[in-house]
Order: sequence, then C-alpha cells, then structure tokens
Amino acid sequence: TFRTMFLELHPADQTDVFLSLEPPERKRVYEFLSPDEFAEVFEGLETEDQKRIALELDDHYAAEMFNRMYADDVADFFSELEEDQAGVILQAMDREEADDVRELLTYDEGTAGSIMTKEYISVKAFDTVEDVIELLREKGPDAETIYYLYVVDEAGKLVGVTSIRDVITSYSDKTIESVMSSRVVSVHVKTDQEEVAQIIQKYDFLAVPVVTEHQVLVGIVTFDDVIDVMEEEAAEDLGEITASRGADVTLGPFQAAKRRMPWIVLLMFFGLGTAEVISVFESTLETVVLLAAFIPMVMGSAGNTGTQSLAVAVRALATGNLEKRGFMKTIAREFLTGFYIGVACAAVIIVLIGLFYGDFFLGVIVGVSIMISLGAASVIGTTVPMLINKLKMDPAIASGPFITTLSDVISLMIYFLIATSLLQYMQ
Amino acid sequence: TFRTMFLELHPADQTDVFLSLEPPERKRVYEFLSPDEFAEVFEGLETEDQKRIALELDDHYAAEMFNRMYADDVADFFSELEEDQAGVILQAMDREEADDVRELLTYDEGTAGSIMTKEYISVKAFDTVEDVIELLREKGPDAETIYYLYVVDEAGKLVGVTSIRDVITSYSDKTIESVMSSRVVSVHVKTDQEEVAQIIQKYDFLAVPVVTEHQVLVGIVTFDDVIDVMEEEAAEDLGEITASRGADVTLGPFQAAKRRMPWIVLLMFFGLGTAEVISVFESTLETVVLLAAFIPMVMGSAGNTGTQSLAVAVRALATGNLEKRGFMKTIAREFLTGFYIGVACAAVIIVLIGLFYGDFFLGVIVGVSIMISLGAASVIGTTVPMLINKLKMDPAIASGPFITTLSDVISLMIYFLIATSLLQYMQ
Ligand SMILES: [Mg+2]
Ligand SMILES: [Mg+2]
Ligand SMILES: [Mg+2]
Ligand SMILES: [Mg+2]
Ligand SMILES: [Mg+2]
Ligand SMILES: [Mg+2]
Ligand SMILES: [Mg+2]
Ligand SMILES: [Mg+2]
Ligand SMILES: [Mg+2]
Ligand SMILES: [Mg+2]
Ligand SMILES: [Mg+2]
Ligand SMILES: [Mg+2]
Ligand SMILES: [Mg+2]
Repeated sequence: TFRTMFLELHPADQTDVFLSLEPPERKRVYEFLSPDEFAEVFEGLETEDQKRIALELDDHYAAEMFNRMYADDVADFFSELEEDQAGVILQAMDREEADDVRELLTYDEGTAGSIMTKEYISVKAFDTVEDVIELLREKGPDAETIYYLYVVDEAGKLVGVTSIRDVITSYSDKTIESVMSSRVVSVHVKTDQEEVAQIIQKYDFLAVPVVTEHQVLVGIVTFDDVIDVMEEEAAEDLGEITASRGADVTLGPFQAAKRRMPWIVLLMFFGLGTAEVISVFESTLETVVLLAAFIPMVMGSAGNTGTQSLAVAVRALATGNLEKRGFMKTIAREFLTGFYIGVACAAVIIVLIGLFYGDFFLGVIVGVSIMISLGAASVIGTTVPMLINKLKMDPAIASGPFITTLSDVISLMIYFLIATSLLQYMQ
Repeated sequence: TFRTMFLELHPADQTDVFLSLEPPERKRVYEFLSPDEFAEVFEGLETEDQKRIALELDDHYAAEMFNRMYADDVADFFSELEEDQAGVILQAMDREEADDVRELLTYDEGTAGSIMTKEYISVKAFDTVEDVIELLREKGPDAETIYYLYVVDEAGKLVGVTSIRDVITSYSDKTIESVMSSRVVSVHVKTDQEEVAQIIQKYDFLAVPVVTEHQVLVGIVTFDDVIDVMEEEAAEDLGEITASRGADVTLGPFQAAKRRMPWIVLLMFFGLGTAEVISVFESTLETVVLLAAFIPMVMGSAGNTGTQSLAVAVRALATGNLEKRGFMKTIAREFLTGFYIGVACAAVIIVLIGLFYGDFFLGVIVGVSIMISLGAASVIGTTVPMLINKLKMDPAIASGPFITTLSDVISLMIYFLIATSLLQYMQ
C-alpha cells in the first residue's frame, strides 16, 4: 500500500515525495499518517511550506505532531509565526513539551540557545553501565542523539561526558564515573552560533552541551544543526560581500529586485561622489581627454584588489586567524601585498600604454596611480571589516559596497591629483 | 606529570598545546608519547606542520604512528608528499594499513573516494545482536565510527544499514536482518565531494557508505570530514568570486601578492578593452566632457548588479535549486530583476542629475543607460556561471572577474551609443 511504501522511505525522501504531490493528495497523506509519522515529514519542509501546511491541519493533530517533533525544530517554526498564533498551538501541546519550546524561544537568534535542543540523555555519575543501557532502551527513541551521554550532578550541573562507545565496551557493573571524562567542552547559551560551529569542527564532536552561567546543562547542539549553520553563514557572507543577501533564486523577479535594489541605489548615490571628483578635475580632463579612457582601469584594479583583501579578512575573522596574527600586522601585510601587486601592474601598464597609445607619459600617470591606489585599496579592504567586527556586527555586512565606494573615490583622487600635478610640471 | 596532564586533554587541545611549544620541547613530546598517542596530535596539525614534524621523527616511530592513524588522514598527508617519500614510509608500515592508504591515494581529489576512510564496521545479516556487541568490543576502538553498522553479503555488497541505537534496544538473540533497513543511501567512489556533503546535510547522517559500481562497500565518509569539505568549498567559492583564492592571511605579503597578482594583471589587460571603447568615442566625450563623470556610476551599477546575479546563481547551483527551476526560466527571471532595479535607478538618477547638474538631458542619457545595462548585467551574471558549470567546472571559478569585465565593456558601449545617438539627434 501507499502507506507502507511511503513509510519505508527515509524521512528526508518522504518530504520530497510529499512536496511533489498535488494539494488534494497531500491531504490524503495526513489522513494516512499518524501525527508522529507526519512529524518527520514536516520537520524537513521549508518554513514557508510549513506555514501553509500547518493551516490545513486539524488543531488536535497539529498539537500532537508538535509534541513529537524535536523542540528545536518546533521553536524554529514558531519563531516565524505571529506571537498569538504560536501561543494558541502551545496551549494545545503537552505541558512539558510546550515549556521546552517556550524556553528555546527566549534565546536570541544566532546564539547556541537558539539552535540547541532539549532531547538529550543525561545520567548520574553513580549510575552503572547496566542502569544506563536500561535507560537508553526507554529514552533512546525520543532523544536526538544517544551517542553522547552527559553526566550531571544533583543540581543539574554538567560534570562529565561519556559516549555509548565507551559504555558498551565496559562491564555492566562499572559506574559511569569510571568511564566518563570530566573535562567537558561546553558552550554557554549565549555563545554565537558560528563559535559553536568552530568548536564542533575543531573537536569533531557529534554534539556539544550547552550550559548556563552556573554550569547547569540546558541543551545540546547537534552536528546536523551546525552543518545547517555553516551553510547559512557561508551564504550570508557571500550575500553580504556581493550585496545580494536574501535574494535567492526562489524569489520572483519583483521580490528579488526589491531586496537587491536598496544596495544598488545606495551605491549609485555614492557614485555621485565619484562623479563629483571627476567633474572637479574637468579642466585636467579637457586638456587630455584620453585620461578618461583609463578611469575604469584605475578604479577597477583598486576595487578588485580591495575586494580580495576583504575576502581574505572576512575568512580570517571567521576562522579566528586574524586575531591570532594581530591587527596592525595584518594591515601592514595587506598594504605590502597591495603595493607589490601595484608595482607589477605599473610595470605592465607603462609598457602597454607606451606600445598601444605611444604615450609614455600617460603610461606613467596611470601606472603610478595604480601602484598607490592598490596599496590604499588593500588597507581599506582589510580595515573596514575589522572595524565592523569591532562594533560587534558581522564583518561581512555591507563591507563589499563600502569598500568599492571608498576605493573608487580614493583611487580617482589619486589618479587625478597625479595627472594634474604632472601636467602642470610638464607645462 | 606533564605526560598525564597532556593526555587528559582532548586531542584537538593536545595539538594546540603542542603547537605552542618551542622545537626542543616538541622533541620531548614525541619521546614521552607512544606512536599511538602522538598519532592523535599529528592528525590535528596543518599539512605544512605535519611535513616539518614528520622529518624530525624516527622512521620506525613514524611508521607506527601512521599505522595507528585513520587511513583517510594518512592518505591526505601522503598526497602532499613527493611520491618516493610516501613510498618509503608505506614500505615501513603494516601491510594491511599501507594497502588501505594506497587504495585511497588512487582516487581523484574532490571525490568521495578521496575523503572516505576504511575504518568502518561491517556485519552480516545473519549475525545476532549479541555477536555484534561482541564484535564492537573488539573492533570498536579502531573504527572511526561505531554508531552506524553496515551490512554486507558474502561478495561484500552493501545490503543494509543499522545503527547502534537500534541494536542496543533489541533483544540479544535477534538477527541483524530484523533490525536493519535495506534501503541504504550510498554514494559512488567517484561522486563529487560537494554532492556527498549535500547528502549528509539532507539526511542528517553521521556517515554515508561509499560503494563501487558493483555495490561493493569500500569506505565511509563521516560528518566531520563533510564539515571540513563545506568550509573548504565555501572558502573556495568566496575566493573565486573575489579572485582571491588561496591567498589566506597566513601567507607573507610577497607570497600573497604572487597568488593574487595574476587576476589583477589579467583584469587590467581586459581594462584595455574598456579603455579602447572609451577612446573610440573620444569625440563624443570631447563634446560633453561631463559624460566622463558618470562612467564609474554606469559601470559600477552594472558591475554590482551582475555580481549579485552571480552570487545568486552560484548559491543556486551549489544547492541544486537552479536545476530544479530550469535554466531559461532563471535567466528570464534575472533579466526582469535587473531591469526592475534599473528602472528604479533611472528614475532616481534623472531627478538627481537634474537637481545637481541642472542637466535633464544628461540625466536621461545616464538613466536610460543604467536601465538597459542592469538588465544586461543580470543576464551575464547568471549565464556565465551556468555555462562554466555546463563545462563541468566549478561555477564560481573566475566568474567574478569575467562578469565584471563583460559587464564593464557592455555597459560602456550602451552608455556611449546612447549618448552619441542622442547627441546627434539633438544637433
Ligand atoms: Mg552570524
Ligand atoms: Mg532554533
Ligand atoms: Mg574537524
Ligand atoms: Mg539538533
Ligand atoms: Mg535537527
Ligand atoms: Mg557570518
Ligand atoms: Mg589505520
Ligand atoms: Mg583524503
Ligand atoms: Mg568542488
Ligand atoms: Mg540537515
Ligand atoms: Mg573520516
Ligand atoms: Mg577525520
Ligand atoms: Mg565549489
């Protein structure tokens, strides 16, 4: 039957099949499946789809389904709903499950608390291996992971950790204390999710425990959620640097334009600044109209170099490498990098302009401008994300557009100042 | 003692401590630790550090250490060595371990084979739960994960999978067949590592089995390696889009300049193309010198919009969303998005140029150029990564620089063609 075949699939595939169905057929799926079974399908849906489907479900069925989902997934969904809507569903849920979800909803987005779940296994130091295996038989099916067992004292404080691997390879009368490690790596509920990801990545943990200021264990963050965080953060960084955040391919053209437009319009305003710089030097430009031909090259080289420095800085901040190396050292290093690239570019362009335009003098103007601009652009590209980071904001935010604009204005000024003074000197 | 304190640390922290030591103290660490113990420290080091340390180790000690490491980590390290150097060490290793490593070295970089490991647990369908728990006691310590148990037939073909969670909650006389699932998600040895990551992310698996064409199980890829792959791929995409690949903050300025320079110089060559376009229209420019002031704005807006489209397309290709939606539909959608943004920009700029420069006519030239350029740049930004992807290359490769250049040349031509024809029309 359809029911049996459907349930044989992996939940993630059940979700795919469900999404491929027409609305009337979808209704049949809820009718066939228990709230428990449908919970696994629902978990895999995107928030938009979840919202649509939740409306179609019978209230009792929905409450039952939310009882069966992991608290973190329920909280993720509820955080996208209107407050009163979430309130009504929470009322209908089991007291205990609802409390877990309410707790998770109190943590700020992007913190360990907001991505952790409550379905972990905790044991006592004096429990025996046999006790624990008994406990796992009972609680195993409801926990998100049974592979790590967290040891807490009477006050709920985290005092140790052990793994099912260590438990299973011990004799049944041993105590947990004898197989646990008391050096537990944990994170605070308010730790940034990117830092949680770095810890999971460093230690290759399946999950990391989350504690309060008083070391009380309140949840765990599992590796699969960290994988999602990493994907999200990478998309975010790329989105910020290219000023395209949130404009993914699933949006309609009008919606996408609405999200992307503010940046482009803002940058155009900044562009008025560059236009102003150029018009200030209008008389220089009238003397040598060909100067205009190399504006894009000078600006472009500086912009590209600045963006390289930005990308290097954003990665270094994300991995913690930048702090390790020191800020001033990094800025000095970037300036030199930009300057070296500039020297190479200058050599090439002086020769090329000499060859193609027969104008050695123009070549020197362009070459020297590029050389200085590239050093400046590298410094800007490194400093801006570092400053944004100091302000406790995401270093990638808006730094792409900022850097382009700053480096545009500065490189143009360098170009025209050099051109104007060299031209005067020649006359 | 130092030894006891050191060994109480988590291996990842042991690596950190080890790295903070001076060379003579480091030597003491190898002397204190067995090859088995030092293997965990060595695994956590960067390749450059591994190379340096490996030279300092006694040959016998090194071979013993490599025997104890997971085959995937050994293969990763050996793939960075000269072939004869790796050959010598392989000779000194245990036959079985060395063969595993040799096999892993045959797979191309970036495939499932290149990131998988050989230390998995396989069982037979007719084994009982009791047999398996016995087996885990013996083989558990050497396996990379014991949480998933792969079921193979006599020919080594993968026929099922079960988890320690399911085994532990079953009665000891049950057979594995009764607790296994025979719908196993697996990947082929040649599957791209990004696809492997997508599968782990979709199903929330701890590990995914790797098979040959004949469904023979040859390895597993674990979640921690997938996390590293995702980090690497995200860094790669950002690096390609910003033309800064491989230039991380740990390089010296000269090395960094060497890696970043080729792109900047190449882009400068392309810049000669834009210079050529401008000089072709020199007479137009002589008539209205102020036209030069808006070159950066027209080019910049087009470049920024093209980069947005690029970022959206690269993400959509990476997540598989682009194929789902269809190529032509996506291009059409992007054109409309760019055009809508262009209409908004045109409206704003006509008013602004009218106000600040009192030149309504110039405003129309700039506005209309931006409108058309933005539509064109969006199409370029979407099409280029799609074409690169069709050529079976990474869509992010070099697409940033390509798109900037193409959109520069095209937007300049649009600008000057419109300016020239409108000027003629006015006269
Ligand atoms: Mg963040
Ligand atoms: Mg959450
Ligand atoms: Mg790791
Ligand atoms: Mg979780
Ligand atoms: Mg989850
Ligand atoms: Mg971030
Ligand atoms: Mg080994
Ligand atoms: Mg490898
Ligand atoms: Mg790749
Ligand atoms: Mg997942
Ligand atoms: Mg592995
Ligand atoms: Mg590994
Ligand atoms: Mg890639």
